[in-house]
Amino acid sequence: MQKIRVAINGYGNLGRGAEACLAQFPDMELAAVFTRRKPADALKIKTAPVVHVNDAADWTDKIDVMLLCGGSAKDLPEQGPQFSRMFNTVDSFDTHSKIPEYMAKIDASAKKGGKIGIVSIGWDPGIFSLMRMYMGAIAPAGQTYSFWGEGVSQGHSDAARRVDGVIGAVQYTRPLVSAMERIRNGEMPALATREKHTREVFVVAAETADKARIEREIKNMPNYFDEYETSVNFISLEELHEKHSALPHGGNVIHTAKTGAGNMQTLEFSLKLNSNPEFTASVMLAYARAAYRLHKSGESGARTAFDIPPKLIAADAPDELVRNLL
Amino acid sequence: MQKIRVAINGYGNLGRGAEACLAQFPDMELAAVFTRRKPADALKIKTAPVVHVNDAADWTDKIDVMLLCGGSAKDLPEQGPQFSRMFNTVDSFDTHSKIPEYMAKIDASAKKGGKIGIVSIGWDPGIFSLMRMYMGAIAPAGQTYSFWGEGVSQGHSDAARRVDGVIGAVQYTRPLVSAMERIRNGEMPALATREKHTREVFVVAAETADKARIEREIKNMPNYFDEYETSVNFISLEELHEKHSALPHGGNVIHTAKTGAGNMQTLEFSLKLNSNPEFTASVMLAYARAAYRLHKSGESGARTAFDIPPKLIAADAPDELVRNLL
Repeated sequence: MQKIRVAINGYGNLGRGAEACLAQFPDMELAAVFTRRKPADALKIKTAPVVHVNDAADWTDKIDVMLLCGGSAKDLPEQGPQFSRMFNTVDSFDTHSKIPEYMAKIDASAKKGGKIGIVSIGWDPGIFSLMRMYMGAIAPAGQTYSFWGEGVSQGHSDAARRVDGVIGAVQYTRPLVSAMERIRNGEMPALATREKHTREVFVVAAETADKARIEREIKNMPNYFDEYETSVNFISLEELHEKHSALPHGGNVIHTAKTGAGNMQTLEFSLKLNSNPEFTASVMLAYARAAYRLHKSGESGARTAFDIPPKLIAADAPDELVRNLL
Repeated sequence: MQKIRVAINGYGNLGRGAEACLAQFPDMELAAVFTRRKPADALKIKTAPVVHVNDAADWTDKIDVMLLCGGSAKDLPEQGPQFSRMFNTVDSFDTHSKIPEYMAKIDASAKKGGKIGIVSIGWDPGIFSLMRMYMGAIAPAGQTYSFWGEGVSQGHSDAARRVDGVIGAVQYTRPLVSAMERIRNGEMPALATREKHTREVFVVAAETADKARIEREIKNMPNYFDEYETSVNFISLEELHEKHSALPHGGNVIHTAKTGAGNMQTLEFSLKLNSNPEFTASVMLAYARAAYRLHKSGESGARTAFDIPPKLIAADAPDELVRNLL
């Protein structure tokens, strides 16, 4: 059987995660890794050819699905529309407020190219989004709550690193267990931002830096920290590397609802991830199957997880799914 | 906007649950309740006309989707093929080993009638099946475990009631929390049946009955109890009615997997249901939307939850889902 030829575009945490996980998807093979670095082969990869992104057009016949592994802030708004015209794509675009606009662009370019572009795939957006949708559709007289953590937020770690005098920083998001318990017990509270999560930052400061100022600037940073109970801990560079190099994450989607005569029903989905990038990449790889299959059946345009029949991401044939999992 | 006209076929726990929950689905209305009782109007229902099943053919133009609320053992094998030719149907057929054969029959009859028949909808099979599929597709190097309870198993309660000298019985299935903890902690144990669940039966015995014999017969009953750690408690009829009339249930699907370099990832979905029939009925109502929409788009044949694009069960339009839930 012909394997699905997958390309990785962008070789950061996510791209490396995809490379590490691809062997677990036996119907796929890594066809190429695309990079912006010059020369491309400055990137040392043994498992597949490394290609400069500017040469992508030469690869349209050699790739079935391209995973866009760039960031949502700067890379994907440009790369998504560009590459979804040439390739079936899967991305993890996660700037929630801009998804409709991004999706419209992907839809236009993918349709022009006769390709499928699956957007915002990962665990949130992605699997958590699916859970929110299923839960709300099934038990409509209820409330859905999303909690994130405990885990490393790369966006917040980056924000702390931008503070003057900070050499290194890692930020952990933690859910407030007491809030989760209230919801599980059937309350449907209105929770302010600071009532759902806390943030803890581990900071390496320059020797001469004013730690009190750094702490103040982090805690008061708008959009990132000012609405949260934030704690700041100063540690050494050694400790940062030793204890805070992993990228764990996870979270919970909890839905409580009343059905019929007022019976409480509680639905919960949780993830505990020792590697956030590897898990996100694995979700993208599963949806690469759907991109491949939808394209083969003649469809084109942008899709989200809401659009994709679940069976299209499974390795097994539909009759096996029915026999073994239904 | 025209509401989806839903019919309930069978007025047991599940049918009554559907009636109780329908008001929470604002795009639906109850068009009729079908019953085998004679005369049909022996059934006192104020919310919709009551119709004898033999007159179903007169109602094909007045109903968009029929919920088949009969049992899997005797009702559905006959009613499914019969009604899926006349109506779009949703059922909760749950005899796992017979689903492929049942589905083939529904597929044939629904295609003949140009209708959609969605089979095996509820929480297991149904939502739990979906979770097993998504989890396995996303993190293939892992194991999925399903636990049920704590909750009332109607099949096991019925089985206990069939023992000579038993006047009433309710059976609770309980998951072994220690087994769940082992899985959550990253073990992937091979678990025997008795290592996953225990069973507890509350029995009302006839005054003259030999309780030791009843206990022995229940505990040794093949297929139902002999493979489990089972406890039997004798109580009064009053206590049975007072404390054991509710139908709670629930369970957990837990998947642990390793990705890439060996990073442990744990996915879990859980349900805690105060009313099993109302929840099952709610899932069926959500999938009635999908049956209606698929039929409207010209499709026909049998479908499972694996086949249905998630958005088709949601009340909101796809662009609202993207904006609010993705």
